[in-house]
Amino acid sequence: MTIVTEPTNTTADLAAITDEEIFLGHVGGKLSVELTAPLETQRDLSIAYTPGVAQVSRAIAQDASLAKQYTWTDRLVAVITDGSAVLGLGDIGPRASLPVMEGKAALFKNFAGLNSIPIVLDTQDVDEIVDTIVRLRYSFGAVNLEDISAPRCFEIERRVIEALDCPVMHDDQHGTAIVVLAALNGAAKFQGRSTSGLKIVISGSGAAGVACANILLAAGIPDVVVLDSKGIVSADRGDLNSVKVELAARTNPRGLSGGAGDALTGADVFLGVSAGKIDESYIASMAPGSIVFALSNPDPEIHPEAAAKYASIVATGRSDFPNQINNVLAFPGVFKGALDAGARRITEGMKLAAAEAILSVLGDELAADKIVPSPLDPRVAPAVADAVAAAARAEGVA
Amino acid sequence: MTIVTEPTNTTADLAAITDEEIFLGHVGGKLSVELTAPLETQRDLSIAYTPGVAQVSRAIAQDASLAKQYTWTDRLVAVITDGSAVLGLGDIGPRASLPVMEGKAALFKNFAGLNSIPIVLDTQDVDEIVDTIVRLRYSFGAVNLEDISAPRCFEIERRVIEALDCPVMHDDQHGTAIVVLAALNGAAKFQGRSTSGLKIVISGSGAAGVACANILLAAGIPDVVVLDSKGIVSADRGDLNSVKVELAARTNPRGLSGGAGDALTGADVFLGVSAGKIDESYIASMAPGSIVFALSNPDPEIHPEAAAKYASIVATGRSDFPNQINNVLAFPGVFKGALDAGARRITEGMKLAAAEAILSVLGDELAADKIVPSPLDPRVAPAVADAVAAAARAEGVA
Repeated sequence: MTIVTEPTNTTADLAAITDEEIFLGHVGGKLSVELTAPLETQRDLSIAYTPGVAQVSRAIAQDASLAKQYTWTDRLVAVITDGSAVLGLGDIGPRASLPVMEGKAALFKNFAGLNSIPIVLDTQDVDEIVDTIVRLRYSFGAVNLEDISAPRCFEIERRVIEALDCPVMHDDQHGTAIVVLAALNGAAKFQGRSTSGLKIVISGSGAAGVACANILLAAGIPDVVVLDSKGIVSADRGDLNSVKVELAARTNPRGLSGGAGDALTGADVFLGVSAGKIDESYIASMAPGSIVFALSNPDPEIHPEAAAKYASIVATGRSDFPNQINNVLAFPGVFKGALDAGARRITEGMKLAAAEAILSVLGDELAADKIVPSPLDPRVAPAVADAVAAAARAEGVA
Repeated sequence: MTIVTEPTNTTADLAAITDEEIFLGHVGGKLSVELTAPLETQRDLSIAYTPGVAQVSRAIAQDASLAKQYTWTDRLVAVITDGSAVLGLGDIGPRASLPVMEGKAALFKNFAGLNSIPIVLDTQDVDEIVDTIVRLRYSFGAVNLEDISAPRCFEIERRVIEALDCPVMHDDQHGTAIVVLAALNGAAKFQGRSTSGLKIVISGSGAAGVACANILLAAGIPDVVVLDSKGIVSADRGDLNSVKVELAARTNPRGLSGGAGDALTGADVFLGVSAGKIDESYIASMAPGSIVFALSNPDPEIHPEAAAKYASIVATGRSDFPNQINNVLAFPGVFKGALDAGARRITEGMKLAAAEAILSVLGDELAADKIVPSPLDPRVAPAVADAVAAAARAEGVA
């Protein structure tokens, strides 16, 4: 296949962004808090603050469920990180992670109309992170955990979900997994084949790798093999942490062992969610009609033009190539749908519904270089939100 | 004196506000988070989010001081409560306190242009509150502690100030104290006498009472007597907690003992900051030309019309009488000034400067029924901010 760059979205366009322009775009931050109604007269003040506000507080004190109706928290997502695994930058800590969290909050507003505040924690201790979020619980209506390193992210997410009665999702895991599933469904649909028979190799066993394996299994695709830096994650290895032991038990149904070359020979799908590289020869060894998602940013596991020499469909995480697989296709709509429905948690069924909704937006536009909508497509978030809200209601969590 | 109600600010006006109108004014909350620049094109996304944002995060990781410049935190005040002493409502908990905290955040925006987010904590344990705020430290640029009950508020404020390198203030204490000092200076100035010789009786030894005593002493007014529910706080009492023991050591220079009547006979100033009542006969026993600040809300310690039978100058906390003593005259400008100067803390000097600036706005408008500006006066916050910033620089904390 030929890589066709979209006219509004070329390498040249992005290369033309100067450092100066980027830093200027961040001066003073990217968010502001505004009033929903003017506070100009004594009357305004008496309604919004004392003495009027006392009546609203008294009503909530008597019936806590009224907080949903009379505070901003019902439409408010906290974007919470400890700064331990930020973008491709790694453990840069809470302060340096702020611009990313502000960006994420801006995306929530832009695509889903949700209010969102960045919360950066000055601790990487699992107990302290969980305790802190639990103490903040009534300050917001949902929690987007962000850029927390594996394997801590798994325990933190599990414990926060258990403790809180509201939507909680670690986006690096599930946002990625939802969009990957949507893209894989899109690729398979374009090729006219079913996903259930695909042999899939995931390179990366961190937050995204584990969540992708889980959603693919949940979507009825049994042949998933996961690679970590030592090779195939298989039950016969003695060096696995508890997360990978569980992963080995659920994946690798053909009992493969060895490295990336062993896994990829004859495979249908390569999914890269690590910061590593993959040999072009391994891609060449895949089955005909192969699908390559090289999602590492900013440097994909294999350059998309090299991958395209062998693969039928190629996707990356980059905006300067077609088929950009970006979480923004998922998280705004997922949280909007969950909040719209008043969901108490985000279920596997809601995630599968989100993946389906992302792809549904494309309709006849589906093509080898358009297996998912553009991250800027305004149709996506509302479609995802509707599907997620419906799934929440159907599953009885709303 | 006669109570003159201001034309735009009458009892009738406020009485006309219906419950329906109040609740309607709170639907969906009073705040929203907005973007400071549009996110419409791929280019916008590439600057505000990946890949551009990585450069900003990398720069902050290398030089943490750049967070001031490139994130919203430098203009962001967290309004933090545990819901233990909310307005006149008492311990209504974090959820029910939310409308009040949203209102406070709205006032920060309205009067000082600062961003502000409400954080309500689901714990009333001092250690847990302090630990939580410390872990959140890099999420904002200043902390307004709000509606935390005494005596816990004193330890919490002290420990948070020690732990954080940014402006921290418990507004129920110092906001009130600043405006009380401004009003007292205004009253004395109108009467043409010095404050230093005034005999002052404070009814209430909670957050506001203690802070008012402290600021009056700091302003060079030695004769301050404090009342709690048992009577005069004096060194010979055996039932005082540690905060009141300290208070007794600093106040009551004439060694009075007994009750409110004993304290008020011949006194110049009554300052009510409790939820209690005061006998009209006690007010009658004060020295000629007396000043009465009956600040309890919604019910003043004595009705202002009753007080005016004996006192030369009367003030309340209510918007439907003249001389409204309201914290909103202080906190927006105090935090704006502290953040403008990059202050690492809020000093006594900055608080005294704020009080002076509040009064300075009045100029020739000073009158018996206008000893402080209206809470809606747009000149106040900028004047306070400038004075506070200058004081911060002069004191070397900026």
